[in-house]
Amino acid sequence: MRIISILLALFFGLSSHAEDGSALWLRYVTGTKAEISCRKQSPTLNIAVSELQKYWKGGLPVDLEVNATKELRALGNEGYTIRTSADGKQITIASSGEQGVLYGVYHLLRLQAAEQLSESNSDSTPNSKLKVLNISEKPDYRIRILNHWDNLDGTIERGYAGHSLWKWEELPAVVSPRYEAYARANASIGINATVLNNVNASPKILSDEYLQKVKVLADIFRPYGLKVYLSINFSSPAALGGLPTSDPLNKEVIAWWKKKTKEIYSLIPDFGGFLVKANSEGQPGPCDYGRTHAEGANMLADVLKTYRGIVMWRAFVYSPTDSDRAKQAYLEFEPLDGKFRDNVIVQIKNGPIDFQPREPFSPLFGAMKKTPVMPEFQITQEYLGFSNHLAFLAPMWKECLDSDTYVQGAGSTIARVTDGSLFAHPLTAIAGVTNIGDDINWCGHPFAQANWYAFGRLAWKHSLSSEEIGEEWLKQTFLPIAGQPSHNSVNETSQKERQQLHSQLSLLNSQLLQESREAVVDYMMPLGLHHIFAWGHHYGPEPWCDIPGARPDWMPSYYHRADDGGIGFDRSSKGSNATAQYHSPLCEQLDDVNTCPEKLLLWFHHVPWNHQMKSGRTLWAELCYAYDRGVQEIRNFQKLWAPMEKYIDPERFRDVQHRLKIQARDAVWWKDACLLYFQQFSKQPIPYELERPVHELKDMMEYKLNITNFECPPYGIIK
Amino acid sequence: MRIISILLALFFGLSSHAEDGSALWLRYVTGTKAEISCRKQSPTLNIAVSELQKYWKGGLPVDLEVNATKELRALGNEGYTIRTSADGKQITIASSGEQGVLYGVYHLLRLQAAEQLSESNSDSTPNSKLKVLNISEKPDYRIRILNHWDNLDGTIERGYAGHSLWKWEELPAVVSPRYEAYARANASIGINATVLNNVNASPKILSDEYLQKVKVLADIFRPYGLKVYLSINFSSPAALGGLPTSDPLNKEVIAWWKKKTKEIYSLIPDFGGFLVKANSEGQPGPCDYGRTHAEGANMLADVLKTYRGIVMWRAFVYSPTDSDRAKQAYLEFEPLDGKFRDNVIVQIKNGPIDFQPREPFSPLFGAMKKTPVMPEFQITQEYLGFSNHLAFLAPMWKECLDSDTYVQGAGSTIARVTDGSLFAHPLTAIAGVTNIGDDINWCGHPFAQANWYAFGRLAWKHSLSSEEIGEEWLKQTFLPIAGQPSHNSVNETSQKERQQLHSQLSLLNSQLLQESREAVVDYMMPLGLHHIFAWGHHYGPEPWCDIPGARPDWMPSYYHRADDGGIGFDRSSKGSNATAQYHSPLCEQLDDVNTCPEKLLLWFHHVPWNHQMKSGRTLWAELCYAYDRGVQEIRNFQKLWAPMEKYIDPERFRDVQHRLKIQARDAVWWKDACLLYFQQFSKQPIPYELERPVHELKDMMEYKLNITNFECPPYGIIK
Repeated sequence: MRIISILLALFFGLSSHAEDGSALWLRYVTGTKAEISCRKQSPTLNIAVSELQKYWKGGLPVDLEVNATKELRALGNEGYTIRTSADGKQITIASSGEQGVLYGVYHLLRLQAAEQLSESNSDSTPNSKLKVLNISEKPDYRIRILNHWDNLDGTIERGYAGHSLWKWEELPAVVSPRYEAYARANASIGINATVLNNVNASPKILSDEYLQKVKVLADIFRPYGLKVYLSINFSSPAALGGLPTSDPLNKEVIAWWKKKTKEIYSLIPDFGGFLVKANSEGQPGPCDYGRTHAEGANMLADVLKTYRGIVMWRAFVYSPTDSDRAKQAYLEFEPLDGKFRDNVIVQIKNGPIDFQPREPFSPLFGAMKKTPVMPEFQITQEYLGFSNHLAFLAPMWKECLDSDTYVQGAGSTIARVTDGSLFAHPLTAIAGVTNIGDDINWCGHPFAQANWYAFGRLAWKHSLSSEEIGEEWLKQTFLPIAGQPSHNSVNETSQKERQQLHSQLSLLNSQLLQESREAVVDYMMPLGLHHIFAWGHHYGPEPWCDIPGARPDWMPSYYHRADDGGIGFDRSSKGSNATAQYHSPLCEQLDDVNTCPEKLLLWFHHVPWNHQMKSGRTLWAELCYAYDRGVQEIRNFQKLWAPMEKYIDPERFRDVQHRLKIQARDAVWWKDACLLYFQQFSKQPIPYELERPVHELKDMMEYKLNITNFECPPYGIIK
Repeated sequence: MRIISILLALFFGLSSHAEDGSALWLRYVTGTKAEISCRKQSPTLNIAVSELQKYWKGGLPVDLEVNATKELRALGNEGYTIRTSADGKQITIASSGEQGVLYGVYHLLRLQAAEQLSESNSDSTPNSKLKVLNISEKPDYRIRILNHWDNLDGTIERGYAGHSLWKWEELPAVVSPRYEAYARANASIGINATVLNNVNASPKILSDEYLQKVKVLADIFRPYGLKVYLSINFSSPAALGGLPTSDPLNKEVIAWWKKKTKEIYSLIPDFGGFLVKANSEGQPGPCDYGRTHAEGANMLADVLKTYRGIVMWRAFVYSPTDSDRAKQAYLEFEPLDGKFRDNVIVQIKNGPIDFQPREPFSPLFGAMKKTPVMPEFQITQEYLGFSNHLAFLAPMWKECLDSDTYVQGAGSTIARVTDGSLFAHPLTAIAGVTNIGDDINWCGHPFAQANWYAFGRLAWKHSLSSEEIGEEWLKQTFLPIAGQPSHNSVNETSQKERQQLHSQLSLLNSQLLQESREAVVDYMMPLGLHHIFAWGHHYGPEPWCDIPGARPDWMPSYYHRADDGGIGFDRSSKGSNATAQYHSPLCEQLDDVNTCPEKLLLWFHHVPWNHQMKSGRTLWAELCYAYDRGVQEIRNFQKLWAPMEKYIDPERFRDVQHRLKIQARDAVWWKDACLLYFQQFSKQPIPYELERPVHELKDMMEYKLNITNFECPPYGIIK
């Protein structure tokens, strides 16, 4: 009987229809036209009405209102309220701005798709009554922006979901329907801005030809409240304009930027502004002319000011000469605090190095008080297994946002440092380097959609828990799309299956999504290890990597410093003293090997192999246990995913199943590579109770994965 | 402290000296010259004396006696007694033959090396007194013979330990010291015969040139009691002698064989005889001329009779036309029972197909009553992972020898059918297809030596348990070679380490050696599955293998017969009726799906996927559990082996460690390949509590291991 029911589920169950992932979390199906009213009309409001008419299945009519009540004004033109009327016969979505109404509409549809609208607590009671709604929302950040690292040739730097969504060669003539789908998806989670091109920017993006193309995209995005920004190359005046210099204090240079900016705004009146990577990793910048970052940024800010445009100036700088790369952004930018125009915001990566699986937060977040700063998160998994590995990043971003900088005493979290509540900068923003490409499912890994989703949700409301976001996303993504609360044709069998599915999704949230980033840390770089990746592409381990003549700070040994005495980078006061860049009492906590959190131990300390950890194990044994735990976790993820074959379409089921296989193999490779390599220094056995390596260090050291940094190896490290 | 002691063990412990495995289980070191007496001198007795003088450390003098007492005559010229004198001041090794004395000497040295000579039960008390010896031994089989499948070009068919030990191109001029070492190793475990060349025999082996080479080897082997035999090509009269035919009834052919045989005996007076693979897999034979196997064998037997030579005639025959390959040897040979000369012995593989990880015994063992029959075991691991996988084969051979044929009622085990005790044939023999090559450690895998060892020990005494043999071998192979009972320089620390080592060896025996063959069955072909190997080389799984135009009985699907209805070969009375070839009550037991042992279920039955097994699981689930258990077992072997790094030389430690890694990876590949392939038919999920596959069926089906059947893939299935 059990088998028969499994078979039935396999062949006739909830999973019978095919899905390709292109709908993202917006897997809505049209039913009978819902009763939606709105007194005004506009492109944005028309979208809002249309979305509800097509997809609202809650039974009650919905009224959309743009209204400047005091309450609504306080929520801003993006905030909204959603309320059930006193007689329970209507729902009203209201905002002081059209954009707020649209966001409210998507919120209501999200609640519906996530089955969070019914009165009963049981998610799986589709016939239960709609609960009374009393929702009031406003965004925590003014600018919630994606950074595309898309090149004009269609490649994406660190992009693992195909080629660029922007078909520059076809634009402006040919317009892909995916441009609007992209805008809609962003609007549905509150993302209101996007930088179309790579921070390693081609000057060509500012050419007349390309601006015509950009304009087309901006026009499509506008009704969805999505503003366009561009990365600029600081040498554009010379490279594109033919000037002899790009010195930001040169009058001709300034004039060139003025003219170019005017041209941009004539095409795109609501253009957002520029994102600049200057004097970093070979990019040009003001320092080439003896000017400071502030002087460079301010010149552009002055030009943009007229149009209410802004400059996002990246603090990701480091030179090969300094002794500790982790200190350099702070050393270069902290002295410039207060020297920037008020329409400049300094964009700071979450950690002081570069998007590692785990970093401490960048001390710049606690250092710039007079200058608006914004976090830059990486949604694309450059250092987290590309689109092969499942890693839900909300926990990582929450870890950063919730970190206490102590800049104004306890409670000075990065969230509060950047959202305008601690320092009352009106300009607030948060950026995510996106994982979007032209793959049919947008992000490569079906679960990578969850990171796009989570970025949007956290950018809107950073107090959301990772668990809430995970639950929302899982339900929207995997519940049967016919299963809305008012759906009546559910028979008893599928009712039971729905309950099982809800239980399974709950397990997937708590044991897979929420654990996934920590699992990656475990099998890649536990205990504060960082940047021991393979050269160039950053897929797979190369703690041994040694490229003759290469920058020392691009070598894994620069970061892990393993030797017979121990492992880790001494950034304490006895070492590079990077700990001093943090405020007290964090500074002292990190500085002391006995109080430094163990998850960051080897980031801040060079620790003897036999150092006793809180578990009672030695450091070496603890490292072994962590790597082993990582491997076992991924195997457990496979087990958690397997029963989903009963509930969802085979296409997405197999896609995830396939990638989890890769991840499981890669995790073993990571564990074996790192433990066998570091064992040469620890000279101690891997604790005998742990699963043994299956690869030889020698083989792994000889192995080279032949990919560029635009590719994701289709079979993982080994086929 | 714990770490320090581990480090000490690593660097200064018992493991400090290097070993290359070339000493096999004879890791003796010379000490002070022992007091050994022997009244006679001869090449054989001189070896016996010399071995003891060099290696006996038991303190007591040893006297060697060739003596024709009634007791000793009953033990035959290979049997012996070992006794401590009444006053406890001398040991006497006595035999009616010189060979028996030599075997007794090796037995005494074996007891010494395995630390089984001391009075105390504790193996790790090196200073305890010698126990009183009262040993009486004689071999169960008259001929205990190795079959080398060595080709004259130096390759070895199904050999995975390098090239042939026989350097034909150098012989007779150059004589490798390994020839004598080979003879000594065989003598030390009671092997008294060897067939030098492949059963797929080149006629050239009988050329004058090659016989000169063979003579050199025979002369070296003789003092060790090792007789030389040759495989012959049945077409030799035509191919080598230039005759128009090789018809065994042709007078010229008979004359040619007479002349050739005379030549052989003139060079090698104690030449053993011929091994013949005729009319099998393309080899020539009497059937080519319309003669029976008996007519072919008898012709050669008549020729050899003069010289007391014998013919070993292989029953390994099958043609592509019959419906069930498993029945064919029986069908062809059973009618010939009683038709063979008394110096012909029919050599039968343990199972009816071909050396699979598990087969039922060949029904021919219970069918030939008037004809001597001998078991042919395969020591080389053609179907058990080559020299990459650890599989101790004593349990497999014991399983065969202990099988009850019921030919004379209960208790008619194959051991008794073949050792002369059930049918009083004076000619008894047992053959092992050897795993020896010119690798420095002889057998490739350090643990493959255990199979050579076990074959010799079982051929001598089939009542030895696999556990006894395993313990003997492990101790001789891995105990520190200085650690003999009378050795006095053992300090307290190493005394403790010795106890730990003994415990570890005990674990290795019970949990690794004894479990290893069953583990291989589990991850390769559990529940009676067979022959689903990769085409040609037989390394790795190809249950899907389909070579257009190839013999159907060389296709895996011929054997597994998986379809939507179930899996397995119906050899019951409803199918091919192969069960009828067995005697009652075994026949009925095998014939009924409910009484057939589950470990042979799919050999004899086509069983529905949902058939309920004794565990309560369905067949499909049971299959999944078996494959999974196989994988987990190998991981456990790795864990059991790991602590050995503290006790033994790094060379052998790492060699085994390396091969266990390969085996662990291969086991996962086997499991994934078979389960994902068969799942296409079962259409059921792998039970969700089991570890999930990490490979894709599609990838595995596309993968081809590019090796011949002379090679062992150095990295296993995948690098």
